Amino acid sequence: MKVYIIGIGLIGGSMALDLKSHFKKAIFFGIDASENNLEEAIKLGIIDQKTTEDKLINADLVIVAVPVNVALVILPKVLNVINDNALVIDVGSTKFPICEVVANHKRRRNFLATHPIAGTEFSGPNAAVKELFKGKTNIICEVEKTAYKQQEMALDLFQKLGMRIRYMDAKSHDKHIAYVSHLSHISSFMLGKTVIEKEKNERDIFDMAGSGFESTVRLAKSSPAMWTPIFKQNKTNIIETLNEYIINLTKFKELLQNDNYDEVFNEMQNTNRIKEILK
Amino acid sequence: MKVYIIGIGLIGGSMALDLKSHFKKAIFFGIDASENNLEEAIKLGIIDQKTTEDKLINADLVIVAVPVNVALVILPKVLNVINDNALVIDVGSTKFPICEVVANHKRRRNFLATHPIAGTEFSGPNAAVKELFKGKTNIICEVEKTAYKQQEMALDLFQKLGMRIRYMDAKSHDKHIAYVSHLSHISSFMLGKTVIEKEKNERDIFDMAGSGFESTVRLAKSSPAMWTPIFKQNKTNIIETLNEYIINLTKFKELLQNDNYDEVFNEMQNTNRIKEILK
Repeated sequence: MKVYIIGIGLIGGSMALDLKSHFKKAIFFGIDASENNLEEAIKLGIIDQKTTEDKLINADLVIVAVPVNVALVILPKVLNVINDNALVIDVGSTKFPICEVVANHKRRRNFLATHPIAGTEFSGPNAAVKELFKGKTNIICEVEKTAYKQQEMALDLFQKLGMRIRYMDAKSHDKHIAYVSHLSHISSFMLGKTVIEKEKNERDIFDMAGSGFESTVRLAKSSPAMWTPIFKQNKTNIIETLNEYIINLTKFKELLQNDNYDEVFNEMQNTNRIKEILK
Repeated sequence: MKVYIIGIGLIGGSMALDLKSHFKKAIFFGIDASENNLEEAIKLGIIDQKTTEDKLINADLVIVAVPVNVALVILPKVLNVINDNALVIDVGSTKFPICEVVANHKRRRNFLATHPIAGTEFSGPNAAVKELFKGKTNIICEVEKTAYKQQEMALDLFQKLGMRIRYMDAKSHDKHIAYVSHLSHISSFMLGKTVIEKEKNERDIFDMAGSGFESTVRLAKSSPAMWTPIFKQNKTNIIETLNEYIINLTKFKELLQNDNYDEVFNEMQNTNRIKEILK
């Protein structure tokens, strides 16, 4: 088997590492905008060789793991070049624009749109780790538009990675993921910003930061190059979630201003059930 | 040595566990509003016996680890009862109101105001763990108002717990901690609320939640009974941080609305230095 990974970062690199242990005879080729990333990926044993897009005709499997703006440009090109038996998957955090850009491609049936809900705040080949996907959810969109053979091949891969599968239409995916992922990133980035701005004037403030602050601000370490195009592509849904979040924060502030501590308590009490929900 | 722990929860319980291993001959007494907590704490080996406030005259060390509203009521009472050699410390997340309520007490010099920046989202005796304080910061306020002998005794305890000490005036503590702790809790609670409200109508949304969401929403599992009085006592500072946070979120939303993705990128890029700050 010949596996081509386009974008050897956290996700693409981690997938390669796991698939390598399942397909011992497979050869792993890497394509990346950064020559450094490619060299590093070879050193780290993530890929066997670097290559270029024109060689994709040889691919059995192509994993497109690039920022979502780049995916919109690359995916049609990849489908132009591949052979008729190849499976192409993407792993981006938006699904509607990506499904749309390949909707009428003659090789649409070779493509499967997926979103593995796995990751860390780190990026690049160095961030790749084994078993990143174990026990995680993979959301597959528009499965009916992918040919049976390629569906089966993909499901076998995801099973080997240890993922559980959820099927969803692309619009619902983008709407839901705005709440449970994209909003978290913005809340974290703006929390970091609010505290850093203060720190300019007030020394030693971060000395006082505990694990709670670190937890809520962790996502503010994420890559702006990856997240800016996600926010752009999912703009409408994200603005809706941000509006609701800002309204809730403003209401909470008003409860404090009005010394309505019974309601402050209730707000927190009601939200405590996140414990059960996230179990 | 006779150690009295008032409030056998996460903080009081964890302190008892660590101190027990350093003072093998000490007897640990527990006082708690909840009879269940006391029974559990005995079973868990956190305290040796339960007792009542009138027995505090025998104490060498009293650790007051109750919600901050209760601390305001209990601390003066504790100081009324103790003997002249005892050390009383509190561990609350607000320091100005607590220092104020004992400011003119005749035994003010037996008291040390502290805030160990340690904790988890869990509460109660079951949440108590060993080595919770190891490597963590302990903020001591108004140290000059505590007698030398009691200061020394306290520093010895904190060294045994493995804590590093920062000295700060109570007003500055409350102002800073609003940014690096209290705001994080509100951002997390309101994030949880925003997503839960959506989930009422939209099924399966939490199936899509990854580790990023779990991290940002972790603090929303915290105890409302503990946090409501903290927000009340630190109201002015918290409202200031909330205002700044809401302004930052609103600006970010407007950048998205205006398709100003260069600035969206810059906002995140600038906040990325939280990586270095938190190292």
